[in-house]
Amino acid sequence: MPIITLTTDFGTKDHFVGALKGTIYKELSDAKIVDISHQITPFNITETAYILKNSYQNFPKGTIHIIGVDSEISMENKPLAIQLDGQFFICGDNGIVSMITNEIIPEKMVEITIQNTNENNPVILDVFVKVACHIARGGMLDVIGKKIESVKELFEIQPQINIEQNQIVGSIIYIDNFGNVISNISKSTFNNIGKGRNFEIIARSYKFTKIYKKYNDIVDFTIPEDKRQDDGKRLAIFNSSNFLEISMYRSNLKTVGGASSLLGLNYRDNITIRFE
Amino acid sequence: MPIITLTTDFGTKDHFVGALKGTIYKELSDAKIVDISHQITPFNITETAYILKNSYQNFPKGTIHIIGVDSEISMENKPLAIQLDGQFFICGDNGIVSMITNEIIPEKMVEITIQNTNENNPVILDVFVKVACHIARGGMLDVIGKKIESVKELFEIQPQINIEQNQIVGSIIYIDNFGNVISNISKSTFNNIGKGRNFEIIARSYKFTKIYKKYNDIVDFTIPEDKRQDDGKRLAIFNSSNFLEISMYRSNLKTVGGASSLLGLNYRDNITIRFE
Amino acid sequence: MPIITLTTDFGTKDHFVGALKGTIYKELSDAKIVDISHQITPFNITETAYILKNSYQNFPKGTIHIIGVDSEISMENKPLAIQLDGQFFICGDNGIVSMITNEIIPEKMVEITIQNTNENNPVILDVFVKVACHIARGGMLDVIGKKIESVKELFEIQPQINIEQNQIVGSIIYIDNFGNVISNISKSTFNNIGKGRNFEIIARSYKFTKIYKKYNDIVDFTIPEDKRQDDGKRLAIFNSSNFLEISMYRSNLKTVGGASSLLGLNYRDNITIRFE
Repeated sequence: MPIITLTTDFGTKDHFVGALKGTIYKELSDAKIVDISHQITPFNITETAYILKNSYQNFPKGTIHIIGVDSEISMENKPLAIQLDGQFFICGDNGIVSMITNEIIPEKMVEITIQNTNENNPVILDVFVKVACHIARGGMLDVIGKKIESVKELFEIQPQINIEQNQIVGSIIYIDNFGNVISNISKSTFNNIGKGRNFEIIARSYKFTKIYKKYNDIVDFTIPEDKRQDDGKRLAIFNSSNFLEISMYRSNLKTVGGASSLLGLNYRDNITIRFE
Repeated sequence: MPIITLTTDFGTKDHFVGALKGTIYKELSDAKIVDISHQITPFNITETAYILKNSYQNFPKGTIHIIGVDSEISMENKPLAIQLDGQFFICGDNGIVSMITNEIIPEKMVEITIQNTNENNPVILDVFVKVACHIARGGMLDVIGKKIESVKELFEIQPQINIEQNQIVGSIIYIDNFGNVISNISKSTFNNIGKGRNFEIIARSYKFTKIYKKYNDIVDFTIPEDKRQDDGKRLAIFNSSNFLEISMYRSNLKTVGGASSLLGLNYRDNITIRFE
Repeated sequence: MPIITLTTDFGTKDHFVGALKGTIYKELSDAKIVDISHQITPFNITETAYILKNSYQNFPKGTIHIIGVDSEISMENKPLAIQLDGQFFICGDNGIVSMITNEIIPEKMVEITIQNTNENNPVILDVFVKVACHIARGGMLDVIGKKIESVKELFEIQPQINIEQNQIVGSIIYIDNFGNVISNISKSTFNNIGKGRNFEIIARSYKFTKIYKKYNDIVDFTIPEDKRQDDGKRLAIFNSSNFLEISMYRSNLKTVGGASSLLGLNYRDNITIRFE
């Protein structure tokens, strides 16, 4: 039985997530449901795409992802089922699919044509569940929708490269649980432009001339543990998703603060790299 | 195997939820456990009832709901197991069952008579788990309790209707993850009293003369998307649970604020409807 | 199939927990995954140990616990797999095992020697998952690691007992979801030193001369329910983990406050017991 994942902006207090899971189990008693996140900032497509982009490939082929963010259906926001990279995404036509990946061409895209059983139900609790369970049982997309050739396209702002090819201007696309700020500058963009040259990263008034591979590469292990003062040091790193990230070593967003709060780096702020 | 759901005020940081799930799996290795909510405001029976009322019917018949809110047992708060609407509720005798539904007569009610294995254990970690697993294995309520005829009754404040039958005064019973404020005025009460007349809804100094069916019915789709200014517009809507709700379109309680914070509408505040 | 539990400081918003679960299911499609907590304060070993100490024994024998707190590998923080008390713990060599229990000698301890498939992956997403699934399939620890005789030891500060054996000075080791403050003074230490003598517990300027067995033992049930004023009363209690706890009856950390905020009791503050 394929896994059905859930990514929503419902939060975990209200009844919505419980109701959604109950509905799936009612339709498919041996469903395997996995929560990806229910803490998406309400209606935030960019955040949803970032979280899915960095997790969907960890799941087995055939996994079905229900996306309950901005999924209220309108004449502009049609319900979609997309087969992409061997997995399935059920969501509104709100641009999210293009933001999850614009590098991989979907194997199949349909606009869902089956209707809500109860018109008062949110579409996610009704049509989306039916479609997910249909796919989980091995059903074809053609049965529940009509083939389409394109979906709404939204692209994340891409980093800008100057004509001299010695500067990348990116921006902050996500702030994580630790307060790390993550930019849209990928390791491959960095390598392609930088070609091994020395560089300076500028984030507000802070500068970095080195990018670490692991957080604790900042630690000098020759100093005895009780003499080290590494906690709170700022560093640039390529994170596990291979994006340039500004971090403060072992900081805590909820107490002393993280890179975001302590360095004053916010969503959409610029991160600039200048090469020699 | 029937589903066992969990609804508690334990939060998700502490060890309680993990300990509870471990205990269930130890007793019944192939249990199917689903979290409804662990974020209930501590000891808040009204909130618990609201969340369960709006989610239990989504689950398959035979589902067993463990309720860990105000379940510390005392001479007044006996442990109960209730069969209601084809499902099972295990909880303290604290009024919660009557608040989940006062319209449906329970099929069976027992006061649990089996005892904690370890008297230091919270009852939910011991007797409640044993009872849930007993029911999940197909056991009868009579085996673990003695039949009772009534439980503690608590009723949510009902909306007040004036003698002239042209005014409903309800109150706010829940504020959701989006900051939407939900009243105790149901669609059927509205229709029964209103009989199709024009009306005005008053919430503090805000007035509404229309109730939407979907959030995005407020959007004028003839205006190009980049010219619209709908976000943050306030609207009255019958929500998916068919209660009158005041919402701000696509607002975010955690950043700009939602209807609750921006309109200053709080738990228990009045919502009034005047008919012509 | 044994259960695999997850205890991390990842939070539940980011993609990390989803990615971790996906990776486990990819490796072992019928895995049984249970979240213990993802809300650990970043890098907080003491909190992690407290939560695991109070939950692991509730799980069946053979359960595998993946601990994703301070698990970035360095020359000092080697990846470990420990068999302890019939269960398995996969974690960094950061002292956590000794804090979960220093009373039980591990059955087996290995330093994990298998390598990450992808060196950019966090070890938890790669080696830890492989080891957990190996154990879940019945594999031996010797296959994935080399036997070691000791791990890093960290001990929680133990309560201090004076020479006259009439005073215990403990400290606050955890504050729970309700704002209850939990000390490191166990019921057995209390009984061994106190030997039934009268006592006074001092927490800042507050004094307690009684330790309750249940929270609602503070209630005088002979008073009619609507006349009682017990909410917010402070009490000392041995909690379900048998540690001395200071609580405020039915208080709510997020609204009126709990024992921690209202009595000004913080992590690491002293709690003193004086015996007559």
